Amino acid sequence: MNQTIRTIHAHHSVRSYTDAPVAEEMLEQVIEGGYRCPTSFNAQHVSVVVLRSPTTRARIAQIGGNQAWIARAPVFITMVADLNKTMAGVRAAGGRQIAHKSVELLVACSIDAGIALGNMMTAARSLGLGVVPIGGIRRNPQAMIELLKLPSLTFPLCGMCLGHIDEDGPRKPRLPMATFRHDEFYRPEAIEAAIEPYDRTLMEHWKAVDRADGSSWSENLAEHYTKNYFPNVKPVIEAQGFTHEM
Amino acid sequence: MNQTIRTIHAHHSVRSYTDAPVAEEMLEQVIEGGYRCPTSFNAQHVSVVVLRSPTTRARIAQIGGNQAWIARAPVFITMVADLNKTMAGVRAAGGRQIAHKSVELLVACSIDAGIALGNMMTAARSLGLGVVPIGGIRRNPQAMIELLKLPSLTFPLCGMCLGHIDEDGPRKPRLPMATFRHDEFYRPEAIEAAIEPYDRTLMEHWKAVDRADGSSWSENLAEHYTKNYFPNVKPVIEAQGFTHEM
Repeated sequence: MNQTIRTIHAHHSVRSYTDAPVAEEMLEQVIEGGYRCPTSFNAQHVSVVVLRSPTTRARIAQIGGNQAWIARAPVFITMVADLNKTMAGVRAAGGRQIAHKSVELLVACSIDAGIALGNMMTAARSLGLGVVPIGGIRRNPQAMIELLKLPSLTFPLCGMCLGHIDEDGPRKPRLPMATFRHDEFYRPEAIEAAIEPYDRTLMEHWKAVDRADGSSWSENLAEHYTKNYFPNVKPVIEAQGFTHEM
Repeated sequence: MNQTIRTIHAHHSVRSYTDAPVAEEMLEQVIEGGYRCPTSFNAQHVSVVVLRSPTTRARIAQIGGNQAWIARAPVFITMVADLNKTMAGVRAAGGRQIAHKSVELLVACSIDAGIALGNMMTAARSLGLGVVPIGGIRRNPQAMIELLKLPSLTFPLCGMCLGHIDEDGPRKPRLPMATFRHDEFYRPEAIEAAIEPYDRTLMEHWKAVDRADGSSWSENLAEHYTKNYFPNVKPVIEAQGFTHEM
């Protein structure tokens, strides 16, 4: 197995960082990893905002629901769906952009931001840096918009912490491969049998890493997926122009 | 610069494949790259369907708008948003899932599918294989759902072709880095000045690679983003249960 694949397979989140800053040359290699990613229709409708300011990071740590590692890691990168950029392109060619009103383009931007984030995390980890992806900025996207001065037709989708590792994190066990990989067609039967053993494995994992607050997979989902856990996303994303009306 | 970063930076799509099948051991390393990716709330709400069947791939090539390389590449992997899997978890814990009705979870699933797709593409390319991501399956998601027997609460988000490279593809030029990377806050002014030179660079690129059908960045966007270019996404994704009503 080659080193790239070993790095990818060993993915795990790091939430403990040293004070050491991330060298600009390292950061550039990471960012370039996102910049070179493919995008739907070559639209390049993803942008990133690189945050080093301790004040800004402390504020984002709050926005994310008191995630202390956001304040601690020297760099936070926000992934932005950017249809402001494409609108400038459409206008330059004499057109009027309307695709930001479609469900399709919300999905396409989110996928492409994910591709860029995945590759940036892998690039960072290949340099020995630690990363953790952050979805919690969607608890209060309006605060992120104000903090980052994001214009209409942009939206802060997610982010990542980046820094030198203090204490390394463990790799979490996953549901069995049969619940992820399907061959030729989808097989719904794999999941039912997997839940109870995985719940047990995950609880053993939390115990082994001294996380008393860890819950099982099914209980964690029952806590979050039985409600609209980030209710601000819909009103704010619509106010930004992503109206998913067509 | 290390090999992983070189691989990531050199990303480009390949649309010309040999007849050689992809060895199962290689495929497993690629798939594991997606399987090990982080997901929001550790929900693991992404699944993949691996397609080798020539008949199925020929059909997907049609669905995608006559993309011959889908029929030609020996493997096509469909990335599926899978809230059927999480519903089984919620139910096992005695709850009733409703989060599939939120804009939030549509965004979260799409980002996580993108992360997995990005890492699978990088893993494949590190093995010397060629890849091209495919959004065109969203032209006719209902046909994909029937072909892959996808149940309610799942949706085929995108896919990738995978195979041994016959003719390698070129690396497309990008908009300037200043339109992608912003420091501390978003700067809208970078894009306006970048459009005209990039349009020219891209047209020179198409000429250099003998693509007479290539259009400039702004013209390409004016063609697609002035309409709802994949209008089937909204009705089909809603019928699958992703109603984005909250």
